[in-house]
Amino acid sequence: MTVSYDGTDFKGWQVQPGERTVQGELQAALGSIAGETPLPQGSGRTDAGVHALAQVASFALNAPVPAANLQRALNRILPPSIRILAVEAAPPEFHARHAAVAKTYEYRIFRGAICPPFVSRFVHVCRWPLNLQIMREAAESVMGSHDFISFAASDSDLSLRSRAASDGETGMTVRTIYLSRWEERESEAGSLLIYRVRGNGFLHHMVRNLVGTMLEIGRGQLPAGAMAGILKQRARSAAGPTAPARGLFLHSVEYEKP
Amino acid sequence: MTVSYDGTDFKGWQVQPGERTVQGELQAALGSIAGETPLPQGSGRTDAGVHALAQVASFALNAPVPAANLQRALNRILPPSIRILAVEAAPPEFHARHAAVAKTYEYRIFRGAICPPFVSRFVHVCRWPLNLQIMREAAESVMGSHDFISFAASDSDLSLRSRAASDGETGMTVRTIYLSRWEERESEAGSLLIYRVRGNGFLHHMVRNLVGTMLEIGRGQLPAGAMAGILKQRARSAAGPTAPARGLFLHSVEYEKP
Repeated sequence: MTVSYDGTDFKGWQVQPGERTVQGELQAALGSIAGETPLPQGSGRTDAGVHALAQVASFALNAPVPAANLQRALNRILPPSIRILAVEAAPPEFHARHAAVAKTYEYRIFRGAICPPFVSRFVHVCRWPLNLQIMREAAESVMGSHDFISFAASDSDLSLRSRAASDGETGMTVRTIYLSRWEERESEAGSLLIYRVRGNGFLHHMVRNLVGTMLEIGRGQLPAGAMAGILKQRARSAAGPTAPARGLFLHSVEYEKP
Repeated sequence: MTVSYDGTDFKGWQVQPGERTVQGELQAALGSIAGETPLPQGSGRTDAGVHALAQVASFALNAPVPAANLQRALNRILPPSIRILAVEAAPPEFHARHAAVAKTYEYRIFRGAICPPFVSRFVHVCRWPLNLQIMREAAESVMGSHDFISFAASDSDLSLRSRAASDGETGMTVRTIYLSRWEERESEAGSLLIYRVRGNGFLHHMVRNLVGTMLEIGRGQLPAGAMAGILKQRARSAAGPTAPARGLFLHSVEYEKP
């Protein structure tokens, strides 16, 4: 199934006891429709406050509910902040995370003195001047395959294992970025700066750390060409701060055509 | 001051003990800036869940805080769901409700099977077919001066007093509508149907009751020309249901130029 959600009121994707999560809401809704509670497996977790335009999740149901009926029933039961955009049958071996070949994220920044209350849940507000040209160059410089450990949450499993590995370049934190660019968009609500990044995978906090670092470059707190050096240092401390969750959207997940 | 807010998380405009209201948040913010807690007087109340693009409120402050500083300080203290768009000095006798000469409301309806979670706080979702042409005629028919008691909340003060008055047409519930029309707008999020109404004043629930009634006309539950008869009957029971608060925006308030 393809799921869109406003992440503001959830403690992220992953089910947690006593917390309201997207995965938990989906599991409960499946339970009340089909009497079975498979845990839908997402293409990846999203953190608390992160949104999704089209997250993909897979699950197995024994009850023979037609896809269209399941979609309608889920949208009736789920809160308006979670919408099921599509439900499709998949081969039994399909797993939304293992089968994903690429993902695209968007990070939205509101430019201007006063952010309308109707968009503030979905943007990071930046008031200071930014040099968009050098931010575009910084975005360009992460294209291709790199060890992104400098941009991984320092508490993440992979990051800890990779840092502990004796040979340095272990490959566990290497990712390939196919597209990385800043776009400007004028909307009714004001001017938006949107970072769009597509890659074969992303480490925990990687997009938010890339954005936080490029914002530091854009405002002159880090030198224009800093990205290459930060990648080389393989240290979270070399990069900039983590940009807030509210601006981040999982835009889409790609799979190989069957 | 001119105030924009997302009404979802507030129990309406008016201050109420133990409840989170827009007026209460503004009063508290003024208190922490100026050490005075005047109660800002709005151009009118908005109900729980109703939004404002540009509500106007007046208040008197003894502290000589420049308008621009006050605006900045308020926006720093207030939650992102309330934004101060402008602060201006006014003559001491100015009162945002008494001095208002016209108000415009917008009511937003989302058309389509699946409403994106990012807009669902701000629209009423209508899935059934609607005859927009007869809804446009219905909107047209409330232009001019009418007794709108049929469209007033039956519990409202004015409505009760007007209904109790012996001579029927007392004038208390007569309002003049300058503009009343439906617009269609295609947006990134989907197709919107927007009702825009401008008048010299509005009774409690009047816009939501007008919209609820026009939706009944548009889907064929009430006859095409029903509006005139409903106005004549002077009875809440003659009109359609109250449309949900989430679709309603106070768009703007007008004052005479000094």
